Amino acid sequence: MTNSEKLQELFERLDEIEAYSRCLGKVQFDMECCAPEEGIEQAGADMSILGKYLYTLTHAERFEQLVTELHADGEGLTPVQKKAVEHLYDGYARVKNISAELSFEMDTVANKAYGDWLKAKKASDFSLFRDSLAALIDYNRKAIDLRDEKKASYYDTCLNDLEKGGSMEQLDAFFAALRKRIVPLLRRIQTEGKPIREDFMTRPVPIPQQEAMSRYLLELEGLRKSALVLMTTEHPFTDNFGPHDVRVTTHYHEDSFISNVFTTLHEGGHALFMQNEPAELHENHGANNMSNAMHETISRFYENLVGRSEEFISYVAPKIRELAGGTFDDISDRELYEAVNVARPSLIRTEADELSYCLHIMVRYELEKAFMNGEITVDEIPALWNAKYKEYLGIEVPDDARGCLQDVHWCGYAFGYFPSYALGNAYGVQILRRMQRDFDVFGAIREGELSLIRDWLIEHVFSIASLSTPDEWIRSITGESLNVNYYLDYLEEKFSRIYELK
Amino acid sequence: MTNSEKLQELFERLDEIEAYSRCLGKVQFDMECCAPEEGIEQAGADMSILGKYLYTLTHAERFEQLVTELHADGEGLTPVQKKAVEHLYDGYARVKNISAELSFEMDTVANKAYGDWLKAKKASDFSLFRDSLAALIDYNRKAIDLRDEKKASYYDTCLNDLEKGGSMEQLDAFFAALRKRIVPLLRRIQTEGKPIREDFMTRPVPIPQQEAMSRYLLELEGLRKSALVLMTTEHPFTDNFGPHDVRVTTHYHEDSFISNVFTTLHEGGHALFMQNEPAELHENHGANNMSNAMHETISRFYENLVGRSEEFISYVAPKIRELAGGTFDDISDRELYEAVNVARPSLIRTEADELSYCLHIMVRYELEKAFMNGEITVDEIPALWNAKYKEYLGIEVPDDARGCLQDVHWCGYAFGYFPSYALGNAYGVQILRRMQRDFDVFGAIREGELSLIRDWLIEHVFSIASLSTPDEWIRSITGESLNVNYYLDYLEEKFSRIYELK
Repeated sequence: MTNSEKLQELFERLDEIEAYSRCLGKVQFDMECCAPEEGIEQAGADMSILGKYLYTLTHAERFEQLVTELHADGEGLTPVQKKAVEHLYDGYARVKNISAELSFEMDTVANKAYGDWLKAKKASDFSLFRDSLAALIDYNRKAIDLRDEKKASYYDTCLNDLEKGGSMEQLDAFFAALRKRIVPLLRRIQTEGKPIREDFMTRPVPIPQQEAMSRYLLELEGLRKSALVLMTTEHPFTDNFGPHDVRVTTHYHEDSFISNVFTTLHEGGHALFMQNEPAELHENHGANNMSNAMHETISRFYENLVGRSEEFISYVAPKIRELAGGTFDDISDRELYEAVNVARPSLIRTEADELSYCLHIMVRYELEKAFMNGEITVDEIPALWNAKYKEYLGIEVPDDARGCLQDVHWCGYAFGYFPSYALGNAYGVQILRRMQRDFDVFGAIREGELSLIRDWLIEHVFSIASLSTPDEWIRSITGESLNVNYYLDYLEEKFSRIYELK
Repeated sequence: MTNSEKLQELFERLDEIEAYSRCLGKVQFDMECCAPEEGIEQAGADMSILGKYLYTLTHAERFEQLVTELHADGEGLTPVQKKAVEHLYDGYARVKNISAELSFEMDTVANKAYGDWLKAKKASDFSLFRDSLAALIDYNRKAIDLRDEKKASYYDTCLNDLEKGGSMEQLDAFFAALRKRIVPLLRRIQTEGKPIREDFMTRPVPIPQQEAMSRYLLELEGLRKSALVLMTTEHPFTDNFGPHDVRVTTHYHEDSFISNVFTTLHEGGHALFMQNEPAELHENHGANNMSNAMHETISRFYENLVGRSEEFISYVAPKIRELAGGTFDDISDRELYEAVNVARPSLIRTEADELSYCLHIMVRYELEKAFMNGEITVDEIPALWNAKYKEYLGIEVPDDARGCLQDVHWCGYAFGYFPSYALGNAYGVQILRRMQRDFDVFGAIREGELSLIRDWLIEHVFSIASLSTPDEWIRSITGESLNVNYYLDYLEEKFSRIYELK
């Protein structure tokens, strides 16, 4: 059998696997955006049934054989095909020793954990989530123990899974650099910063107007409308059923009109990435292999570097005033710009300002490191969480709901995911600086010409993401490895100016 | 192996089959209500892939064996279980000789037909749909030829599939009776009827207000909100993912506020049926086995017998005026009642009034009979359609889009479906008369006490539908077989009063 025939057979199997994944994904999407309350349980049970067949497809001996053989000998494959096979091989190596039983148990634990977490968060009672979290950590470590290839620690394995080449060594240095400059900057703002007016931020705007704003922003970002859906959900996310079907979801609150602008820009950034990988990647089952940090780079690029810039606010302010029907007519562009950039330590990560955001991540990083590597027990999490919020952000955590229960990530074994957001922030500024050498980015933003940014990202960033490790990627785009100073310089410059620090 | 063990095994297989069907159904629902334009093609391809596996489940030898054996010997099964097995056996007998290839070809023809029909309707050019329709008829006849059991004709087979015991003999008599009294009544209205004011019917009302009206009506009908979804789509329908997840869809037009009231009531009627079959039927895979006419009985009961009654209009008129924000303040309840009952021959079935509706069905019935049984060729359909509209409704059909291309049903092999609507109309009035012996139905409607109707239907109608043939069903409810005179008397009385015929 030639390599070309093997690849053909592998691709046919992938067509089937991906069809199942998309259908399951749509049932999940339906659960989150459409299904009625009583229908959730049945949907979960149905997904388990289809999931079992999907498991047999992804764990078929022949599938393993094709991936392994093509990985060992890629003669005749194009570079894109080689990368696609490599990615499959990596993914396969992680799960190949996990039995069907263990896989099913892991899913069951995760499903139960989600329900427990919801209850625990509602009751603000960590003890209701404690056992599930312990089981999640335990199963995750079990699954790592089964791997052929070993890393220095459990948490190193998690980090490397999500960002190839990532490690505690790299992230310890990264967060130390952030801490060193962000913590004092935030303290200076609190003591020396000028007061910023923000009373108008919660003025109510009707939901249909907010939805019109979201549609306007997604179009402004340069998304293809014919391949885009906008829906509402409890927790905003972006979903991907191939480049022809990308779904942005958001949540509207009457008194959070302005805040929804940034949620939409963030999710729209994810959607832009999903719509715009090269066709060759999709045709060769090699798309969507970028790391989470790469994805968060783009979402936070649009949310913060574009969205919270003075140029962008000036461009969209008239639209905001128009859709709000007079509600913001007495607010100047500059007042709006300053208000969306208020930097103040707070309890909730997703509502954090651009400056203190990374400190929220740092707390989670240090906790994950400790409990994944067995340095602390599950029971120690709440107190340690609260102590770190006090230390880095200077605030008291009043309860677990606004403390260690606030995020859903751990329910899905997403240990090591949080650092992606912080890395994304730093990659973003480094990429912005490179982009500025090619054209006047903020001049374009001031004119609403966001298609220039999209097109630059398509050419330099989206085109190679699924083919690269994070380090290869950032070096290819900017000529150097991740350099956190671009980001820290940016923060210092921006916030010193806003708060008129001497 | 005992029957109880066999049943257990059969039910496990049905759990899997139904899980696949529901997931596929949700992907289909997603296509119609959520997916972006570019995503439709991929969704269709994904459904074909899952459909192939579903085919292997429903055509597994062991599945056939279990159904056949339990059908031949149902010792120890409960009556509900016996009926469930009987229904499975009937369904299986229809398709068991259809090969996987033929089944796939039939699906391919139907998928192509849908696209061709859309194009043909848009261009108002029957020739674009002609070949597909010919193939649909041809494949449908081929599939019927493969059955072990033969009926008198192809169309008799179609009718019996959809309404057990149904035949051309029964329906010829049924439609002859309708024609005899409806055609002259409609003529009298046109010549002698008093003029009815209806200029206000197209006054625009904003979509969010219309959506609020739909939600109000669904709640009024007595639907469980926690098991209900309301969404928008191009062509309204109701979808069913079990009694805990029922989906009503409708389409809003600013100038069709009043007309949407009846669409919602109709779809809500379907939803009530879906939410309220007995738990024992669901637990034994015996639900949803009612005939289409039974389903249309309920939807048209709420749309017409309830919705277009003077008592209902009086009850909802204040809500209509409130939501329309003054738009209908100058219209009296009586004017509104008369306007929603204007009887006038028209071109489009779905927009037809209560009186002329059955004539639209009659045209389709006579055409289906002729082409299914080979009495006319596909090419003769448009001219014959137009001639029958002239004969029964007295109107000229200006083009095929508003003629024989208006309905989607034939694209899905739904030959013989249309009579269900007419039968439903007639069953409905017969059931209403029986219901009136138990309580003051229109008194309850006048007070908005629609839960009395729902509860009566749950007890007398929904409880036995999936366990009965249509004739057993109507006899069990009313004590006699279908008697079209209740319906015709109702029409004559209602419309003579509205139009003040002497």
